[in-house]
Amino acid sequence: MTVIAAIDQELSMTEEEIREAVYGMGRAARQAAYALAVLDAEAKNVILRAMAKELRKQSAGILAENAKDVEAGAERGLSGAMLDRLRLNEARLEAVAAGVEQVANLEDPVGEVLDERTRPNGIRIEQVRVPIGVIGIVYESRPNVTSDAAVLCLKSGNATILRGGSEAIHSNRAIAAALQAGGETAGLPANAIQLIPFTDRASVQVMAGMDEYLDLIIPRGGKGLIETVVSLARMPVIKHYDGICHVYVDAEADLKMAAEIAIDSKTQKPSVCNALETLLVNEAVAEEFLPLLVAMLGDRELELRGCERTQAILGDRAKAATEEDWGTEYLDYILAVKVVGSQEGAVEHINRYGSQHTDCIVTKNAELAERFLRNVDSACVFHNVSTRFSDGEEFGFGAEIGISTDKLHARGPMALRELTSYQYRVRGEGQLKAPVG
Amino acid sequence: MTVIAAIDQELSMTEEEIREAVYGMGRAARQAAYALAVLDAEAKNVILRAMAKELRKQSAGILAENAKDVEAGAERGLSGAMLDRLRLNEARLEAVAAGVEQVANLEDPVGEVLDERTRPNGIRIEQVRVPIGVIGIVYESRPNVTSDAAVLCLKSGNATILRGGSEAIHSNRAIAAALQAGGETAGLPANAIQLIPFTDRASVQVMAGMDEYLDLIIPRGGKGLIETVVSLARMPVIKHYDGICHVYVDAEADLKMAAEIAIDSKTQKPSVCNALETLLVNEAVAEEFLPLLVAMLGDRELELRGCERTQAILGDRAKAATEEDWGTEYLDYILAVKVVGSQEGAVEHINRYGSQHTDCIVTKNAELAERFLRNVDSACVFHNVSTRFSDGEEFGFGAEIGISTDKLHARGPMALRELTSYQYRVRGEGQLKAPVG
Repeated sequence: MTVIAAIDQELSMTEEEIREAVYGMGRAARQAAYALAVLDAEAKNVILRAMAKELRKQSAGILAENAKDVEAGAERGLSGAMLDRLRLNEARLEAVAAGVEQVANLEDPVGEVLDERTRPNGIRIEQVRVPIGVIGIVYESRPNVTSDAAVLCLKSGNATILRGGSEAIHSNRAIAAALQAGGETAGLPANAIQLIPFTDRASVQVMAGMDEYLDLIIPRGGKGLIETVVSLARMPVIKHYDGICHVYVDAEADLKMAAEIAIDSKTQKPSVCNALETLLVNEAVAEEFLPLLVAMLGDRELELRGCERTQAILGDRAKAATEEDWGTEYLDYILAVKVVGSQEGAVEHINRYGSQHTDCIVTKNAELAERFLRNVDSACVFHNVSTRFSDGEEFGFGAEIGISTDKLHARGPMALRELTSYQYRVRGEGQLKAPVG
Repeated sequence: MTVIAAIDQELSMTEEEIREAVYGMGRAARQAAYALAVLDAEAKNVILRAMAKELRKQSAGILAENAKDVEAGAERGLSGAMLDRLRLNEARLEAVAAGVEQVANLEDPVGEVLDERTRPNGIRIEQVRVPIGVIGIVYESRPNVTSDAAVLCLKSGNATILRGGSEAIHSNRAIAAALQAGGETAGLPANAIQLIPFTDRASVQVMAGMDEYLDLIIPRGGKGLIETVVSLARMPVIKHYDGICHVYVDAEADLKMAAEIAIDSKTQKPSVCNALETLLVNEAVAEEFLPLLVAMLGDRELELRGCERTQAILGDRAKAATEEDWGTEYLDYILAVKVVGSQEGAVEHINRYGSQHTDCIVTKNAELAERFLRNVDSACVFHNVSTRFSDGEEFGFGAEIGISTDKLHARGPMALRELTSYQYRVRGEGQLKAPVG
């Protein structure tokens, strides 16, 4: 039997069986969450270090399971790039284990007092960070997400239910089992980290409806996956959609700095969500700036897609951009370029076509910069900084679970703090609203 | 033509017409939100005071419109209590206007710097409160919600799309029109406050799907309404579900204080979500406490529904509770009572049957109290304080839009701060990830 056939055989569960299995995991996760919520920072760190140790100990087994996924992927005809994303080796697995230890070294957000106040009647109100509870993560491909997501959730006191893609099912199972087993030797509550062991699509549907057990669901992957979760979910969803990021070159920009920021934002790593996609240039400097940009690009092979005015300045160097280009996240060596008449025009373009991720103004005029920062409705607004710095680690938050394009609860880089909720603890001496005679 | 017939006539819009109309309001609200986001505190307060003035100026007209709703309600056979909730008079309308002025006096949350950090590479990161954008409010009955919700959203810089119930449509239209008209004389952007002028159910469905224009939807009303919004919504929802609140009388409680807190929590105003529904009593003190409670109730007509052990102690004074009672929000002069063997038993009961709203322990033992506060997974956990204090005004937050039973973004009393998001503003001097040669 081929590996694919073996996987397909597992998919013979009925929807009712899937539902029952996933709900059972939900109930178990809720119990685990109560136990996790009261663990102190040191207890969680001991658990995390035991997990890292177990990942190293089981590395041969994990790599063997990973080989099955890679083999199945090759049978399925996955591209070389896709297979590479799927493949683990000793060095990559060591990086995963080291990542777990790094999370142990981060500060525990749980228990932080966010606000304290004493009311005239003497009651004392404390707002304290607490874990969210149970977090569902639905993701695709890369097996390292299994570990990264689970340990960030654990550090912040949350139980997880993981649902990885079928292409990495063996790797995911092996990693999740190692994390749970290693953790349990150090006091991890049972079922704190659970992976849905089958990959039928119906399991996502069941998760999305299970709002009595899942407090939050985070889809990580392509737009199709996110859309599915958004339309089905009954619990809060935190989305990590596109990064259609802009750099706006103001009339008062240092043009060399502007070209450097544009080139770094676009070409330093084009495949990531904080890479530049559309460059906006004030008409007052377009004739000087655009040729400078092209010159500074040197032999970098960057395709430019420009508006009419850009083409008039750059000639053949720029293809014609269409309306679609303004709303496209290329994730590639392609840059859309548009000449705008004013800062207002730039802001309007960004608010209309952008994805509220990260947008930058380059200018020497501080007042204009502040106006841009206030008027652009995006998670991260930058002045004279490459968009590539829009990242939890660059912001000093430690590891991040993603960059939220939502506005509620978590916006922008989402790290440990954003994996918590809060609770009001109120203490008094028998205060009543009305005397009880 | 009767009033009902007149309303029904308006309902002859096709779904497509409704969709088009609501989407048009969404687009307009988004534009208004951009304009609102940059208004400073004083500008918004001037607008709020102008709104209050206009409400007073138009009071005769508003009361005339309200009379139509009351007449239609009577035709429909609404109960006296329902008609009373619907009815406005000069005093009630004056309270609405005064409420608008009170919101003007609250502190503006927008612009507050939540976090500031400078990274080793010199970039300066500022996390600043900003408005959420456009908030949809779906509500039932009381016409004062039209004003309360709109002005809290406005103060926090948000545009609103209001969708009130058909029973109050004339009142809601008149109030929303007065708010918008009064505000515009003082600089309120057009379409900052929009009421959906028809009440077809389809409008809720359209709102729930309109995630490109609505950043948040808040359903205020019965469980059916909330369920509908939760299952349809593509954008974040903040729910204000039941308050199944508990008081747990510990073995080391001051029993007189415990009885006072139970009586105040239950009877001071039973119709609200922070009223007590289930009393849990430690078995060590049940035989002493329960008769004391009954004695202190005096001639208050409170129905008790007890577990077997409660009944054994109180005899006929307590009816038999069923499993259903533990999960019921009575909002009435009824109290469920259960004897538990330990604090763990109380916590387990609360986490299982409660609604994560407000739960209280009464005890003289501070250590046991802290354990309870940490283990109960509710928005508000109280020690020796009546549950009736679970309220935005009592917490010192000013007016509240509700008490969230969600864990994401807003938990517990939800006031101005919780009507904001945040944005990272990053300033530098041309920092790049890699040199651009």
